[in-house]
Amino acid sequence: MAVPLTKAKLRELRDLARKNHRESTGRFVVDGLRSVREAIDSSFRVIELFATQDLENSAAGQALLAEARKRSVIVAHITAREMEQISDTVTAQGVLAMVEWRQWSVAHLLATAARASLIVALDAVADPGNVGSIIRTCDWFGAQALVLGRNSVDVHNPKVVRSTMGSLFHVPVLGGVDLPEFLGQAKEQGYTVYAAAADGDAFADQVTYAAKVLVVLGNEAWGVSDPVNSAADVRLAIRRHGAAESLNVGVACGILLAAIRRQRTGTGD
Amino acid sequence: MAVPLTKAKLRELRDLARKNHRESTGRFVVDGLRSVREAIDSSFRVIELFATQDLENSAAGQALLAEARKRSVIVAHITAREMEQISDTVTAQGVLAMVEWRQWSVAHLLATAARASLIVALDAVADPGNVGSIIRTCDWFGAQALVLGRNSVDVHNPKVVRSTMGSLFHVPVLGGVDLPEFLGQAKEQGYTVYAAAADGDAFADQVTYAAKVLVVLGNEAWGVSDPVNSAADVRLAIRRHGAAESLNVGVACGILLAAIRRQRTGTGD
Repeated sequence: MAVPLTKAKLRELRDLARKNHRESTGRFVVDGLRSVREAIDSSFRVIELFATQDLENSAAGQALLAEARKRSVIVAHITAREMEQISDTVTAQGVLAMVEWRQWSVAHLLATAARASLIVALDAVADPGNVGSIIRTCDWFGAQALVLGRNSVDVHNPKVVRSTMGSLFHVPVLGGVDLPEFLGQAKEQGYTVYAAAADGDAFADQVTYAAKVLVVLGNEAWGVSDPVNSAADVRLAIRRHGAAESLNVGVACGILLAAIRRQRTGTGD
Repeated sequence: MAVPLTKAKLRELRDLARKNHRESTGRFVVDGLRSVREAIDSSFRVIELFATQDLENSAAGQALLAEARKRSVIVAHITAREMEQISDTVTAQGVLAMVEWRQWSVAHLLATAARASLIVALDAVADPGNVGSIIRTCDWFGAQALVLGRNSVDVHNPKVVRSTMGSLFHVPVLGGVDLPEFLGQAKEQGYTVYAAAADGDAFADQVTYAAKVLVVLGNEAWGVSDPVNSAADVRLAIRRHGAAESLNVGVACGILLAAIRRQRTGTGD
């Protein structure tokens, strides 16, 4: 049985579009069937689900709601109009979840690294779609975690959450990290720091990677910042065959992780 | 000397946000310093430039306008407010260009291919940012052309143009192509067709690529369509190491082109 949506809850859902409200409550909103299902299946705590009548009438929706109830998640009714006030997308598919943040500590992350480990860090990456796509790529390539510097876009931004396609619930994302300090700590723990740079000193497909790899990608317009550049052990470039000045940062991340994984698993021609 | 902006021209700039108007006029709008400069330097015909006072007062703007005038491009004054009515972005940087389409024929493209050739085709890729980023990636990896199936987003869509970061002026893009027919023609000309597929039969880093490569990538949600799948000689997959169900299509494109280029140029470990 679905409960009615209270005005207070509707207001909270709306307020969670704002970063300061997400920070003061430690909550965020997830939309879409696929992402909501991933949230329910994950170690994240789903506080409440909000479903439209259309969703409750669909087979996929019924399966999702049954799963939610099995895990004692409260399901509230929401109208399509109320949903439009909350979600800035037409692809919300009639379902939203209010979810509690999970937080991971840098110290724990670095201490629990296996012998071979891959961590990705972002320095002032500003576009939500890029950060979301990078989280998805980290998930695909089995990166241990994604670390966001203080000046990167907020990971609980609705557009980031949406474009991770559920991968946010698979890959630990550490937000608001002091990046130069983190790089120092990682190096102490045996990580080699590789900074992506269009004018890097080594091509990604020719480097022999260390066992503990930390890849840093920088801002869409100006790349990694000076302190990160100084901390890098290797400045990695992707071989260019044409005229473009740079690659999209998400695309660059995919190419670098593929090159690292390719060498590590010893596959390829 | 800049000329005043006529009402008719302002209306045309606004109308060019719509696909049907772009199609009836064969024109499109480019915004931002970098993209406008690339347009001026390219083989595309720039019909007119529109610049704000702020742009004319900046050093970068003056250099751009001098370059435009050297090439006899008319420059009209536009106010920041008028510009806001046209460009949906805050990054227009005070300059717009009205540019004429260039059109390339499939027959010419296939007939002029060098011995080793790389063409990318998109089957119903819907997101403008993805198509723009793929054009940029094609440019980086020196692909000969990008071919868009009839159901892909329009290449002259402002968001596509913007996210190519000027690469639209380097890589021939053929729009509105009947993809199954094109694949047939390409195969007759000696191309091998590689379709990206999450459940493909070969890993991209293990395939020995033909001299004439045609890579097809499909829709964000459901991949390549059945007719394209049937026409493919090889269904290419990217090795997965984690839990994500798929990669962003632009990221997948970058990883595939890097793998192909890597083998072709014989570089790497």
